[in-house]
Amino acid sequence: MKKITVGIVDTMFARCDMAAFAIDEISRKFPGTAIVRSTVPGVKDLAAGCVILDKGEKCDAYLALGMVGKEPIDTQCGHEASIGIQLAKLQMKKHIVEVFVHENEGKNEADLYSIFEDRTRKHAVNAVLLASAPAELAKFAGMGKRQGRADAGQMRKK
Amino acid sequence: MKKITVGIVDTMFARCDMAAFAIDEISRKFPGTAIVRSTVPGVKDLAAGCVILDKGEKCDAYLALGMVGKEPIDTQCGHEASIGIQLAKLQMKKHIVEVFVHENEGKNEADLYSIFEDRTRKHAVNAVLLASAPAELAKFAGMGKRQGRADAGQMRKK
Amino acid sequence: MKKITVGIVDTMFARCDMAAFAIDEISRKFPGTAIVRSTVPGVKDLAAGCVILDKGEKCDAYLALGMVGKEPIDTQCGHEASIGIQLAKLQMKKHIVEVFVHENEGKNEADLYSIFEDRTRKHAVNAVLLASAPAELAKFAGMGKRQGRADAGQMRKK
Amino acid sequence: MKKITVGIVDTMFARCDMAAFAIDEISRKFPGTAIVRSTVPGVKDLAAGCVILDKGEKCDAYLALGMVGKEPIDTQCGHEASIGIQLAKLQMKKHIVEVFVHENEGKNEADLYSIFEDRTRKHAVNAVLLASAPAELAKFAGMGKRQGRADAGQMRKK
Amino acid sequence: MKKITVGIVDTMFARCDMAAFAIDEISRKFPGTAIVRSTVPGVKDLAAGCVILDKGEKCDAYLALGMVGKEPIDTQCGHEASIGIQLAKLQMKKHIVEVFVHENEGKNEADLYSIFEDRTRKHAVNAVLLASAPAELAKFAGMGKRQGRADAGQMRKK
Repeated sequence: MKKITVGIVDTMFARCDMAAFAIDEISRKFPGTAIVRSTVPGVKDLAAGCVILDKGEKCDAYLALGMVGKEPIDTQCGHEASIGIQLAKLQMKKHIVEVFVHENEGKNEADLYSIFEDRTRKHAVNAVLLASAPAELAKFAGMGKRQGRADAGQMRKK
Repeated sequence: MKKITVGIVDTMFARCDMAAFAIDEISRKFPGTAIVRSTVPGVKDLAAGCVILDKGEKCDAYLALGMVGKEPIDTQCGHEASIGIQLAKLQMKKHIVEVFVHENEGKNEADLYSIFEDRTRKHAVNAVLLASAPAELAKFAGMGKRQGRADAGQMRKK
Repeated sequence: MKKITVGIVDTMFARCDMAAFAIDEISRKFPGTAIVRSTVPGVKDLAAGCVILDKGEKCDAYLALGMVGKEPIDTQCGHEASIGIQLAKLQMKKHIVEVFVHENEGKNEADLYSIFEDRTRKHAVNAVLLASAPAELAKFAGMGKRQGRADAGQMRKK
Repeated sequence: MKKITVGIVDTMFARCDMAAFAIDEISRKFPGTAIVRSTVPGVKDLAAGCVILDKGEKCDAYLALGMVGKEPIDTQCGHEASIGIQLAKLQMKKHIVEVFVHENEGKNEADLYSIFEDRTRKHAVNAVLLASAPAELAKFAGMGKRQGRADAGQMRKK
Repeated sequence: MKKITVGIVDTMFARCDMAAFAIDEISRKFPGTAIVRSTVPGVKDLAAGCVILDKGEKCDAYLALGMVGKEPIDTQCGHEASIGIQLAKLQMKKHIVEVFVHENEGKNEADLYSIFEDRTRKHAVNAVLLASAPAELAKFAGMGKRQGRADAGQMRKK
């Protein structure tokens, strides 16, 4: 497997140390992967954060980690942040795996915490594979894979 | 008919192997068409997936295959993914035929499965024709063609 | 009046042959205007369709003709298509006159048909004038002109 | 004060001659300011209209004048038009002062007419100052200035 | 700490002198930081305002300060303004810290005023640190930092 560098951009707004999950997961599963990391205030700063990191570091793929608050205006902010991330991907011609947790997704704090951890860890693996061994992902094509929750699984013809 | 290469980008999130339908359809109807394929985690990764595939493969047209989940936040994600795909088309000046199935479109699982298959197969043909024989599509202009369901047909002046 | 070329991109999804109205109108009112035409599957393919047509044909203005279905998801698709068309205009620095008919606009099929015809014919004239004689449009500035329905007319100071 | 050229793009859809207000206001308050003017069908054509005008005229700032209809689909069209105008500003690196009047803003026709006039005249002044004497606007920073209605005024610390 | 220049763009529409808070905060905490400032009519002019300021001044980071009105159409305008700011960041490859206060956020005028002050002061610090000492922000990664209100704090595993 090709040795790569992953850029991680996370936020001060999130209520969970998402980058720590990503760094731990990548270090365990893909030792030798280089990681660079940058922190921005909130989700709307993630797209620019990736592009600015890319000016100096030229990572092979990026992880954009953020939490979206629970008010309707927060949902709109998350939407704007996602549009920015779409633009940044196409400008860099690189994958940015967007890992957004919505504050109102969890049934309670423990559930929310587990979504943070599960989604971040699984997408950290996805980011590494997209840049180093993309054919690995094709094994799971159409399999109903989920991050944050259990997999939905594949539908079969009835 | 011009020999072409079609790029297929599909997702791990979808609950159906959409790429398999597309590959089968193209191979039967347009033998000799080259196909390259790449898998990404979810719909928001499709636009970047097409542009990244295009760096190496220079396909003549792309198919972006994905499923949009049933929650309101999934609909928003699908919207962001579609904006990204619009941007990618204009950046590459190539067609990306977007094949999105919404998880809540089906009356039941069997119906949903048939939408997956019908829409993907028909749009696979469209993608090939757009790149190899675009005049073929003009024969169906204004005919109320549908993918996923039966055609709506053309209105006539009363 | 300057002799120009108009590019028409229409869809297979529409339930009415919109391009036929546009071609008829332009041929009658502006004989000598060159027309090139391309058909794509649906409204989301119109922006790329114009940009791709422009690579070979270098038209002076474009008409993007499409129907938006009646479900909420169709309205979202129309929105995404329109954003793409905005992007395409600015990329080409040319006018693309967007002629969208929403399937639920009509009181009945006959009414819907008349909207298709009236809007397409009037906007076909607009597209020609924008490219060949833009000062002609200034005569109608602020006059409440409508395509698809009767003009709303100009408000007067009370 | 620097002598400048202002580009005005207005629409046939509006029910009021917005450009006439802008031209009158600029001529009275800033004699010697050059004005070029172009008319397009509706608000979705304004962004391209500014960029196309800029190809030939190289104005220092632009006014995009339009009316948004009263139906929900019109609001969506206005949104798409505004996104296009944002894109056009950044592409040209110039200000386009967007003057949109929503048909349902007025309590009645006389009120709507006064919004058209007040908003257009005030923003015409803003467009000239942005290009010729931007420091003039800083005098009103945070003062709750409104166009179309009376100023909201500045909040004071209680 | 690197000496930097911060560009501040604020609006005439806001009902509070946001730039004054930002300038005071930066001058106290980071003496020696150069500040350039420009005022535009409203939030939709902020993105272009930053890009135009950058043509002459080449600031290291920008603050875009604005108020979003309380009507639904104002929320839409704020959304359009934010999309423009996302585009401007990626075009310049620089951070623009967006400081938007929504007029209906406050429980009353005194509360609204305190949101204006708190959010602007905290984000002014963020803008300086993003450009001069980005590693400082990583100390607060995932800590639930808020601007405008008290911090939400970090969740702990239960």
